Amino acid sequence: MKLPTIEKPTLLLDPSRVQMNIKRMAEKARAQGIRFRPHFKTHQSEQIGEWFREQGVSAITVSSVDMARYFADCGWQDITIAFPVNWRQLEKYWSLAQSVRLGLLVESMESVDWLEKNLSVPVNLWIEVDEGSGRSGVHWDDTNTLLYLAERIRLSSHHQYQGLLTHAGRIYSSSTIGEIENVYTQTVQRLNQARDFLLTNSVERCEVSIGDTPGCSLVFDLGKVDEIRPGNFVFYDAQQLRLGSCQPEDIGVVLACPVVAKYPARGEVVIYGGAIHLSKDTVIDQGKPVYGLVALPGEQGWGAPVPGGYVARLSQEHGVVHLPEPFLSQVSLGDILLVIPAHSCLSVSALGEYYTLDGEIIPAFQG
Amino acid sequence: MKLPTIEKPTLLLDPSRVQMNIKRMAEKARAQGIRFRPHFKTHQSEQIGEWFREQGVSAITVSSVDMARYFADCGWQDITIAFPVNWRQLEKYWSLAQSVRLGLLVESMESVDWLEKNLSVPVNLWIEVDEGSGRSGVHWDDTNTLLYLAERIRLSSHHQYQGLLTHAGRIYSSSTIGEIENVYTQTVQRLNQARDFLLTNSVERCEVSIGDTPGCSLVFDLGKVDEIRPGNFVFYDAQQLRLGSCQPEDIGVVLACPVVAKYPARGEVVIYGGAIHLSKDTVIDQGKPVYGLVALPGEQGWGAPVPGGYVARLSQEHGVVHLPEPFLSQVSLGDILLVIPAHSCLSVSALGEYYTLDGEIIPAFQG
Repeated sequence: MKLPTIEKPTLLLDPSRVQMNIKRMAEKARAQGIRFRPHFKTHQSEQIGEWFREQGVSAITVSSVDMARYFADCGWQDITIAFPVNWRQLEKYWSLAQSVRLGLLVESMESVDWLEKNLSVPVNLWIEVDEGSGRSGVHWDDTNTLLYLAERIRLSSHHQYQGLLTHAGRIYSSSTIGEIENVYTQTVQRLNQARDFLLTNSVERCEVSIGDTPGCSLVFDLGKVDEIRPGNFVFYDAQQLRLGSCQPEDIGVVLACPVVAKYPARGEVVIYGGAIHLSKDTVIDQGKPVYGLVALPGEQGWGAPVPGGYVARLSQEHGVVHLPEPFLSQVSLGDILLVIPAHSCLSVSALGEYYTLDGEIIPAFQG
Repeated sequence: MKLPTIEKPTLLLDPSRVQMNIKRMAEKARAQGIRFRPHFKTHQSEQIGEWFREQGVSAITVSSVDMARYFADCGWQDITIAFPVNWRQLEKYWSLAQSVRLGLLVESMESVDWLEKNLSVPVNLWIEVDEGSGRSGVHWDDTNTLLYLAERIRLSSHHQYQGLLTHAGRIYSSSTIGEIENVYTQTVQRLNQARDFLLTNSVERCEVSIGDTPGCSLVFDLGKVDEIRPGNFVFYDAQQLRLGSCQPEDIGVVLACPVVAKYPARGEVVIYGGAIHLSKDTVIDQGKPVYGLVALPGEQGWGAPVPGGYVARLSQEHGVVHLPEPFLSQVSLGDILLVIPAHSCLSVSALGEYYTLDGEIIPAFQG
């Protein structure tokens, strides 16, 4: 591993782990006859997108209009923007819809009407469903609103009704694998209950799209869904590790950080790597919130998290790392510590590029 | 205010407020005969740096080597990098030290020796002091180590001993203005106690540098210090507002976010503006942690925070905003809500540019 070239916080990527994560999820979806529309907001990279294409993926999910443009320019032809329609980006929707099969999310009559009035290039409309987490979407048991919206879309002279889409955000509050499985299963049931209501009324066709890394990773039978959209599984992170969604050997990216100060009496070192690199998202480790776990560089890549090692505090560029013996004694000023971020998506967004274990640079979209 | 051109999360900057914040702090330092070496990590912008120069500022602080390079290229000649020396950036220290008066921080004999051995271009060395917050630096009451380091630096054939430098991180745990004043005063006392010890021993000259926005904003008499290095005061933010460091009319930047969904029954709207724009830093508002406060656009700029409005939850691009009546009814899809970030430094780092109230773009360093 070419660590000597690292001078500041740098995202290291292990291509073989990442490719294995992609292959595993693609095969799982294929085996169950479910469309795999991975969320590209985690990796945000043309080159990593190609690794998905090699696994037969042709449809993707993104979280912003600009990210859709980036991947459209990379040759992706079937893109869902999994974010409520933003009335201030009409021109970009126009441009995208003219060149790719574009999926958009609506959750109000106002937005459906706005699209009907302002966007005459055809797009596929998903009704976003709030499965209970209270972020965005029509609440799953508000079936009258769902029907009302679906019927309105079906009357559209431009757009196509696609189905019901949700993100099972509640799953991230789970504390056991059994709980994750229960939330996933319940979410699929809720979506299907809503779908059945629409189908027994005037709606003829209604897909169900679901997507979250813990559920899609852990639940063996993905159930009665047409499409899954997990994203984070491409790299996983400390949150997923603690949830049980992955094993240590599935962690695909770490933040390599120079050690700049050492405090043996405190059992701590200070690294160059702070809130602007890791964000301030946390994971519960041994009962307390931490900003990341710690791994050590090996011959080829990195090992499992160091027992008892964690990022305890962050300021803008400083990270304070708790590191027990015997690891603390092995670390010197100028060494590199590897941090498994609490939430890898946010570190990718902050860093904007990856270094592979061979020192190759993989650029990512910078939105 | 040119709001119609905003299509995605955008940092709005009010130049008159920012210039007033700069002027006030510069005048305060000048009146007390203290060197003002503002921390530029908050704004990270050449143009805003010029506003400081107009107030007579010639010495600055930065938080990274690359940020030092950026401001050196903007013509700044006296730069302290307020971060422990990073052994992996030797070449950049060389290059900087050849063109500017460079200040570096050391807190161990290893780093002093490393500099002596590897960097023969002269730099000014500050010993970083841990005033009690436990981030980086030699603990303030470990006077023997301080003396040992200071003597070693004074024997250097290349480098100059400058003094003792600290950041009063503990001040951010204060809950009243009285507490801020106490922590500030105590920090100045601790530094002076250490300085007196050095001066009564072999050290002839020892400056004291201190810097934090709450203390420098609120304490009338800045005390026996040679230099102050506050940074955040240039914009302030929700954390500073809640600490009492500033008034609502001092808030210099807000994040303008399109409203993309509205849930009157929940008393919430969803904005395009998430963790990648605001970070996940929080401020305690009415007893609970929130990611930002809410302001509404006015004829010229923005008003005080809306009573009861706050950013309750964040995901990568979504922000869920709690907004009570009558404000909720006044907001429609496609409108812009303004978020006063919990921590403005992190939003600046994430966004990388500002829009002034007149629609002018001010770029910032992107490290």
